[in-house]
Order: sequence, then structure tokens, then C-alpha cells
Amino acid sequence: MPASPIRRFSPAPFTQVAVEDGFWAPRIRTNRERTIPHAYRQLEETGRIGAFRLDWKPGREPVPHIFWDSDVAKWLEGASCDLALHPDPERERLVSEVASLIASAQQPDGYLNVHFTVVEPDRRWTNLRDCHELYCAGHLVEAAVAHHRATGSRVLLDALIRYVDYIASVFGREPGKKRGYPGHEEIELALVKLYRLTGEERFLRLSQYFVDERGQEPSYFAAEAAARGEPPSRHFSPSYYQAHRPVREQAEAVGHSVRAMYLYSAMADLAAELGDQGLREVCERLWESATQRRMYITGGVGSTSEGERFTDDYDLPNETAYAETCAAIGLIFFAQRMLQFDCDGRYADAMERALYNGAISGVSLDGERFFYVNPLASRGAHHREDWFGCACCPPNVIRLVPTIGACAYSTAADEVAVHLYLQGRARLVLDNGAEVRVRQKTEYPWQGKVRLTVEVERPAEFTLRLRLPGWCRQYELAVDGAAAAPLVERGYACLRRTWHGGEVVELDLAMPVEKMEAHPQVVSDFGRVALQRGPIVYCLEGVDHAESVRTIVLPKDGELTPRFEPGLLGGVAVLEGEAAIRDISQWEGPLYQPAAPARLRPTRLRAIPYCVWDNRAPGEMTVWIPKA
Amino acid sequence: MPASPIRRFSPAPFTQVAVEDGFWAPRIRTNRERTIPHAYRQLEETGRIGAFRLDWKPGREPVPHIFWDSDVAKWLEGASCDLALHPDPERERLVSEVASLIASAQQPDGYLNVHFTVVEPDRRWTNLRDCHELYCAGHLVEAAVAHHRATGSRVLLDALIRYVDYIASVFGREPGKKRGYPGHEEIELALVKLYRLTGEERFLRLSQYFVDERGQEPSYFAAEAAARGEPPSRHFSPSYYQAHRPVREQAEAVGHSVRAMYLYSAMADLAAELGDQGLREVCERLWESATQRRMYITGGVGSTSEGERFTDDYDLPNETAYAETCAAIGLIFFAQRMLQFDCDGRYADAMERALYNGAISGVSLDGERFFYVNPLASRGAHHREDWFGCACCPPNVIRLVPTIGACAYSTAADEVAVHLYLQGRARLVLDNGAEVRVRQKTEYPWQGKVRLTVEVERPAEFTLRLRLPGWCRQYELAVDGAAAAPLVERGYACLRRTWHGGEVVELDLAMPVEKMEAHPQVVSDFGRVALQRGPIVYCLEGVDHAESVRTIVLPKDGELTPRFEPGLLGGVAVLEGEAAIRDISQWEGPLYQPAAPARLRPTRLRAIPYCVWDNRAPGEMTVWIPKA
Repeated sequence: MPASPIRRFSPAPFTQVAVEDGFWAPRIRTNRERTIPHAYRQLEETGRIGAFRLDWKPGREPVPHIFWDSDVAKWLEGASCDLALHPDPERERLVSEVASLIASAQQPDGYLNVHFTVVEPDRRWTNLRDCHELYCAGHLVEAAVAHHRATGSRVLLDALIRYVDYIASVFGREPGKKRGYPGHEEIELALVKLYRLTGEERFLRLSQYFVDERGQEPSYFAAEAAARGEPPSRHFSPSYYQAHRPVREQAEAVGHSVRAMYLYSAMADLAAELGDQGLREVCERLWESATQRRMYITGGVGSTSEGERFTDDYDLPNETAYAETCAAIGLIFFAQRMLQFDCDGRYADAMERALYNGAISGVSLDGERFFYVNPLASRGAHHREDWFGCACCPPNVIRLVPTIGACAYSTAADEVAVHLYLQGRARLVLDNGAEVRVRQKTEYPWQGKVRLTVEVERPAEFTLRLRLPGWCRQYELAVDGAAAAPLVERGYACLRRTWHGGEVVELDLAMPVEKMEAHPQVVSDFGRVALQRGPIVYCLEGVDHAESVRTIVLPKDGELTPRFEPGLLGGVAVLEGEAAIRDISQWEGPLYQPAAPARLRPTRLRAIPYCVWDNRAPGEMTVWIPKA
Repeated sequence: MPASPIRRFSPAPFTQVAVEDGFWAPRIRTNRERTIPHAYRQLEETGRIGAFRLDWKPGREPVPHIFWDSDVAKWLEGASCDLALHPDPERERLVSEVASLIASAQQPDGYLNVHFTVVEPDRRWTNLRDCHELYCAGHLVEAAVAHHRATGSRVLLDALIRYVDYIASVFGREPGKKRGYPGHEEIELALVKLYRLTGEERFLRLSQYFVDERGQEPSYFAAEAAARGEPPSRHFSPSYYQAHRPVREQAEAVGHSVRAMYLYSAMADLAAELGDQGLREVCERLWESATQRRMYITGGVGSTSEGERFTDDYDLPNETAYAETCAAIGLIFFAQRMLQFDCDGRYADAMERALYNGAISGVSLDGERFFYVNPLASRGAHHREDWFGCACCPPNVIRLVPTIGACAYSTAADEVAVHLYLQGRARLVLDNGAEVRVRQKTEYPWQGKVRLTVEVERPAEFTLRLRLPGWCRQYELAVDGAAAAPLVERGYACLRRTWHGGEVVELDLAMPVEKMEAHPQVVSDFGRVALQRGPIVYCLEGVDHAESVRTIVLPKDGELTPRFEPGLLGGVAVLEGEAAIRDISQWEGPLYQPAAPARLRPTRLRAIPYCVWDNRAPGEMTVWIPKA
């Protein structure tokens, strides 16, 4: 990435990280072998791929939808990323075919959008608020960048550069241009990626324009609605689109949660690229709002299905949680960007929380079923589905999984940061040119022991930053067998020395079962605890219990023991121990009664990782367990 | 009331009950001396009264609103009821002036609605869903009935009978009529009142038509929207109007809570008048849904401000509770009707709960400020207001308060039922013609001792039913000093005997301080208790505590002692005792932490009745207190 006066770190290219662990490596393989083909079939069968042939005629069903382009684009981005990890001529052929097909839909003036080319050609750019044109453009840009990086092909990249240049001719502050911006953010962060790939500042400037124009008065969305002849909508709420005020004046994470996360990610990108400390501070404020007052323990955000949006501080209902898969992925994007400024473990903690819980829960272990919504409690009716009419989540998982390596490491001028403990290997090039190879041997996330081996081409002085996760309250660190008492900076143990190669760094993170509680103002969790061990948040699932998991309570001093079960759910550590069943028969009828000691009888409890629930028999699930 | 094959009881006419207690009598006086004049001034100053002169001209502000008629009507109804209790020539002049003014606005064809006469004369009956025409008509009918009963005048009554006959010529199943029904129910129960006053069956039939037509397919609301040229609204939700299916197929209390309560009240009326057991069973089902799964401990209903509506079972958030004053009053209407079928104490329990808590909280002790919304927790920003643009609640309180006597007693063929313990006197005429006078001496609701004296003109055999409130777990009953062991039927102690007059019945209801808990599925209240003593629900108010009431927790065995404070808040029993302050400083920042024992330090707690909060210095308030 280009140098930034305020961002010290850069994420490792995901292609430089070989993931060989028991958690992510199978996910990457399943993504490659099952999810990518499954999603391609769905894209084809639903007409999304074929739509790029532009042969739709009025009256034909299905009608190409305004967000279809983005579904194909995200698939292409994900498939390209996976291809970059794992060359495969057949897959490369398919990927390039899709890339060429998309490029073939480009119009003579550079425009590239199926719906507004074949269905409503006279409505181009008339409804930025609702019609996802710039959102689709953003995903196409991301796909083009990923496809180019994976294959070297410019077929889609050149098309998208033309499209972006056309977009820049339509939107901006210059006279004669529309002062619009997207109702669904996405293009902003995509343009930064395009800038980073090409070095062309005009892409950065366009991103900056879209971000800074947002929420300015008079409202562009109101003006374009009036131009369409619509009456001022009573239901229009600018905060839904994060357009209630200019972004630099925003202080709370509001509105549609995926849009918010994509916007904030772009803002973090721009703050870094432009050295804009003020914008970074806005991002920090929004980060605190999102993660310290509005985030589920799973890393999910956006509490309500009504508008898929953020609600109020501490409003985190469990059963009706929306916590869209895409929003957790968006939180990972935002976290990963904030982490690069100065390697603050708070960002890595939330990133890890979302990765291991509320994001990866979005896909089944067999890779062919998906959660759009990730509640923290279910009466048994919530299940993953093959696909969705609004299919944003499956391809978002597809593009997240292969790139996990980029979340694991960062480099700086003379520093290497390890954010995630993933068995495998990384080849890292520092800004000073030194090449460092790190090998990790660990059973993380099921065990806290990590053995890192550092290799260098020639002796080099640099700092190795090892993340001490927020969940860890005790650790031991040794270098070549000698206990180390490192400087700890913002949640990272810093080992600075001249590395000669072959050093073995051993980190042992104590990983007891923790009963977590939520801030007292989170009424949904009051009087309850959630089980967590390491980064893994647990849940109780109906299939493991003879009685309703809704009646299970945790005794105060009940011991819970982790046990790794290689044959269960792809190999997970379960938690087992004593619990109690609360007899709630006296509650048939009355809603209020004089308080009485709960009538309890002993039972056994088995908790499984939240991310793998609903992979066996359908049933109840709960994360937050009442305390006895 | 007319005889009904399935309704055994009739409420006492409120005019036959003299309320002389320490709780309601001052409220009635304040309503008379402060609230009625205050509201009249507001109605006049805002143009609502003058609007009936029909001299509004386009371009003038304010524009008569579609619900203004109902505000004036409810005021007139309440002022008439109060006048019936307390003759006053000056008040009678004002009341009759308003009645005549309303009548003067009637159109030659019988129509009577300000807005659609002067503002949109060509839109009459074009939007029953949203435009409140039939709702206003209903309130006008109720006002006319009350005015006639209070004064004997027919000026408004005759006008309303003409209006209703005109309405019946417009709506119905007969060819050429519109098959409409109101978007906001109200006229249905008003028509039953008119039927009861006049004995004219056609009013009952029209009510029955409106109730039974509701929710039939094809949807009238959709058809009239189409006739207005509106596109099918994505936001239109028939359940909001209780029109999602025919009422006899409805099983859950849904939609706008005031509309629901008014509809269900009318359904209970119709079930009784028509001897319709099936409809009564529907009412029971809806009652259970409303009160066993969707009611606050204060008797408030309708959890959310979004649509002022019911949400889901057990969804009863405290701070964001809507619990509109009108909805609690509507619940009282519904309860009082259900209670007449066979004197089931469940209905009286909820009626009493709402009366003493979530309904009367709607008005300040000085009678001139009102809650529209009745949350169960506040950070200090929620306060009563002088008036509202949408001013339904203040005049609803005005008409409730003088009629409390009708909630206190019922009569049947040879039975007298006492539902509420109110110091004062009642003159009750049984269906068999016997006249019974009951005198109550009690300090209820602050003490549970009640001394009733029964007087009869001549010896008469009848059953005296004395309610044993649901909150009471122990009582003693004596007649003329001799302990009685009565038959208890559906929550009432039944004393059947030949009464000679002069008998003294002493009932002593044990009234300890109760720590109430909510059904375990009410997540908002989980791990918390509410303090209740007798019918009174308590709260903690900021002004009584040095530290945030949000940090107060109740120790398990903490004693709470009631103490009557004659000088406080009009004379209330407060609860005092030991409690603890929870140190939540460790929660600055993180949203989730390993569970740790709460750090507590002792404090004193003083709880006041919920209904009188926000009558002193503004501050925090909470009903549900965490258990230590």
C-alpha cells in the first residue's frame, strides 16, 4: 500500500499466507470445492450470469434486478482470490469467462449495469438512493481488481477503469455534474482499492468526493426524489443511508448496518491515504459506537430486521437479532483497516470475534447453506438456506474466506505484527525490504499454545509484535526457550531484536472457559452469561439436550470443561459440565408473580461453538444462559 | 343494561357511587376543578372548539385536523359525566354550549365532521383507513349519550342519531352501500352505548356490521386506496388496524393498541348483547394474549412507539415502553366489559392494575400535565406535557376519572359484586328490584382493611361478592364480627344470605410488600424485581436518591417497610428499606467482560407509587430493580 503519514502498518497480501490450521484451512477448501461451484450454479440458474448477455426483453421473467450485478461481482472477486491461492486452469477458465462476459456488457459510453441497460434504460442515475447503481459499480471494481491480481488479465480491469472514468464525468462538484452519492455505500472503498492497484490519484479523489459529499445540504436524495416527481416521503430517513449529516459530523453508528460498515471502511482507507487525522478520529468515534455499545458478543451488528439496521445503544435482543452476515464481514473490513494505523489490539479483538463467530456462522460446514440473519437465540425455526432472492451474504462469505491471511499479519517499516494465530506459513516483506518468514504451529482456536519460527534471509533488526488477545488474562512468552518479559503496547507483546533466523518464539495464552457478562444496560443479557473460550463464543443447541435449552440455567460455581471432539462438526472443542433445569411450570398463565426461588434440578450441559450451530438436527439454540 | 343470556352482571351506574376515598376522590375533584377547565382552554386556544363554527377558509392556520372532533367530544363526554356527579349551573352552561355548537355543525344530510365539511368536502368517506371519520363519529356518539344522561338534553343526541342513521345509509352489506369499516375503531362500542340508551336495535346492528365486516376479503382498505389512485402500499399492514382477518379468527392482540382495545371492548359488548358465546371466546383469547403475554406490570399495553402498537409475546422493554395512556384506559374498558359476564376476578385484577398504575399515571397530581407515553424506566428526560398536537390522552383521562364508580360495583339478578375497594357509598338496584346500599370504610389502596356496611330497604336474599384481589394471598373475612369462611368463586368471596340491613362485613386483605418477577421470557425484566404492595406498583425516582437509581440493586433478604406519608404526593405510602449501589465503573468501555461478582455498597431505598412519579424534581425513574 502507498505510504501514509498516519498508518504505520499494511496487511500482508493474503497470497503470502499459507493457512494450514484445523479451523480455516477446511473452510477455505470447502469454499473452493463446494461454495464457489454451488453459488455459481445459483447465479446461473437464477439468471444472474446470463443477464450480462443483455438479451432480456420486456415481459420476460425473471427481470434483471438492480442488485444482481453485485452478486456476480462478489462471486468473481471471491473466486479470483481463491484462484490466487490455488491455481487451477479449469477454475481460471470459468473465472475469466465470467470476467469477459461482464466486460462485454459495457456500453459505448463506459456504463456497465445490466438492469439500467436493458430494463430501465431511461432511468440511469435517477435514483441513487434506492437503486444500487453505484453499489454495483463498486463491487464490479473490487471484482476487477481481484481478477487482475489473480490472473494478470486486464479485460475486466480496463472496462471498470472506463466505467469509473465515466462515473467521474457524471458525479462531482464541478459545474454540470450531479452532486450525488450512493444510497448503498461500497464504491468508496472499491475506488481506494483501484487507486492502490493503479496508483492513479483520480480514483482516490472520486472516493473522497463520494464520502465528503454524503449528507451535505441540500439533500441530494430529496432533490432526486423531487425530480422523479415523488412527494417528500414521510418514511425517508436520511440516517438509514448515513446521510443525515456530513460524515465528519457523525458520531454514532446508525442506519443500515452493512452500508455503515462499508462507509466506515472507506473512511478509514481515506484517512490513511490522505493522512487525515480528523477523519481517523471520526472513524474511532464510530468504531466505539458500533463495538462498545451496539455489537453482539458474536461480532454481529445491526440489531433489527426492520431496515437491517442499527438501533439504540445496548439494544441487542437475542432472538430477534438481525446481525446480518454481511454486516459482520463489514465489521471485519472496518476493523482490519483501523488496525493498520498503529496496531491497536482493540481492533484485532473485534475482528477476531466477528471472524470466528458471527461472520463464519454465515455458512454451513458443507459450504452450501447460508445464514443471512444470525440470531443469538432460536426457538428452532431458524435455519440456513441454499440461496436468497437478495443474495448478498453467500458471495460475501466466498470473498472473505480465502483472504483470511490478510487479517493475520501486518508489516511496517521494521515490524511484523501477528494478529491471528493460524497454523501455517507467511512470507512477509517489510517496508525496509527485509523478507521475514514466519511459521506458526498451533491448535488455535482450540488451544492457546503457539510456536512461531522466524526465518530471515539475512540478520535483520525488527520488532515482532504478537497479539495478546483481549480475552486472554495470562500468558507466557519465551524466545528460544528463555522466558521473555516483553514490552506490551496496545495489546501486543513487542519483541525487538536482531533476528538471525531460526528463532523459536513460544507463546502460551491461557484459555480457560469464561463466563462472560454483558454491560448492565444490555437488558437482553441481564442476569445471563455467555460461554467463551479463547475467541470462540459458545451456544447451547437443542440436539445436545433432552430438555428445552431455554430452561437451562448455570449454577454459580459449576465447572465447565473443554473437550476436543475430532469427529464433531468438523472437529471442535465442546464445553461440558453441570447445569440445572429451571422448572417454569408455574408460569403457565400469569405474566407477573411474587418472586420465588427458582425450582431447579440438575442436568448436564454441552455447549458447542456458536459458528457451527444448525449443522445437525434442527432445534433450539441460545448463547446467553441465565445464571442460577 | 338489556338482559343478556350470557352476561350475568351489569356495572353500577357511576352516578350511584359516591367516591370518598383518599386516592380517587382528590383525583375526581382535580379533574373537575383543574383538568376540565385546563383542557377546555387548550381546546379553545388550539382552535378545536371554534372549528365547529365551520368558518375555516382555505389558507388559514390552523387547518382543522381529522381528529379534532374527537378531542372535543371526549372532553364533552368527560365534562358531562362529571356534571352528572356534581351539578353546577355554570359548568352545565359551558357543556351545553359545546353540545349545541357541535350539533350546529351538522350538515343537511346528517353528516357531522368538521374537517371533511370545511377542508376536504369532496373527500368524505374516501379514506376510512387513515382519516378517522368514523372514529370521530363514535366519540361524538359517546359524548351525546353522556350529555343526554347528564342533562336530559336531546340537542346533541338527536343530531347524533341523525348522523348515525346517515352513516347506516352509507355503510352496510346492502346493495349500493359501501362495505367499509373504520381504520380506527371506536364507533362500534359507541353504537352499543346508543343502543343501550335508546333500545333501538338498528344501532346494535350497525355496530355488529362494522365488527363483522372488519378483515373480510377483498380488503376494503386496499380497494379504497386503489379508488384514490394510490399504488398498493408496501407499508400497509392490515394487522395494524386489526383487519388482517375477520375478528372471529383473530387470536393475538395486534396492531395499534388503542384501536385494538376499543375493538375488543365492542366485541365484548356485542357478545353480551347478542348472546354470542363464540365471540365471547374470541374476546377471551384476545384478552389472554393482551394480558398474559403483552402487558406491562403497570397495566400498560402496546410496547413500541413505532405505530403505537403491540409487538411480540414477552417483548416489554421498559425504557422504550410506549404504553399509551389511552391504551391502558382501553384495557380498563375491555376488562370492565369482560368482568360482567360472570364476575371473573382475572378481569378485575387487570382493571385495577391499569387504574391504579398505568392509566392514572397519565395525569399529573395538579391535573394539568399529561403523559401520552408511560415508560417503566427513564433516564430523566421523560416528562408530562400541558397538551399534545395529537391530544387523545388528556380527554380520555377526563372521561375515565369521574366514572370510576362504574368499575367498583356490579349487580346481577340477586347479586352485588364489589370489584374495587373505595371508601364511599353506593346505591345499587338489583335486577330483581331490590335496592342495596353499601358503605365502604377503608384506607385502600394504602391499607387492606375494608369495612362494608350493607343496608336494604327490606330484608332480601342476595349474594354479596367481595373481590379477593389476585395480589392478595391471605385474608380474613367476618360478618358482624363472626369469622366467615365463604365460598370463593373466580376470585370473589361469596356471602349469600338474607340481608336485613345494618350488617357489617369486615374484610382484611394482607398487603405485604411483594417483590414481583416477570415471566422468564420477558428479557427486559430478567434478573429484576418490581415492588408492589396491594394494587400499587412502585418505582424508584431520582429525586429520592443521591445516586443513579439505575445502579440500585435489591439484596435478597432486604426488608422493605411501607410508611404512609400524608404530605407527600397527595398522600401515599412509600416503601423504604436497605438496598445496595452497584459499582459499574468497570463497564466504562467494554461491552462484554468475564462475569465478576458485582461490587456493592449499602444504601437506602425509597420507592414511590409509579402513578405519581414525575410530580417533583425531574430525574431518573425505574420500576424493575436488579436483584443483587
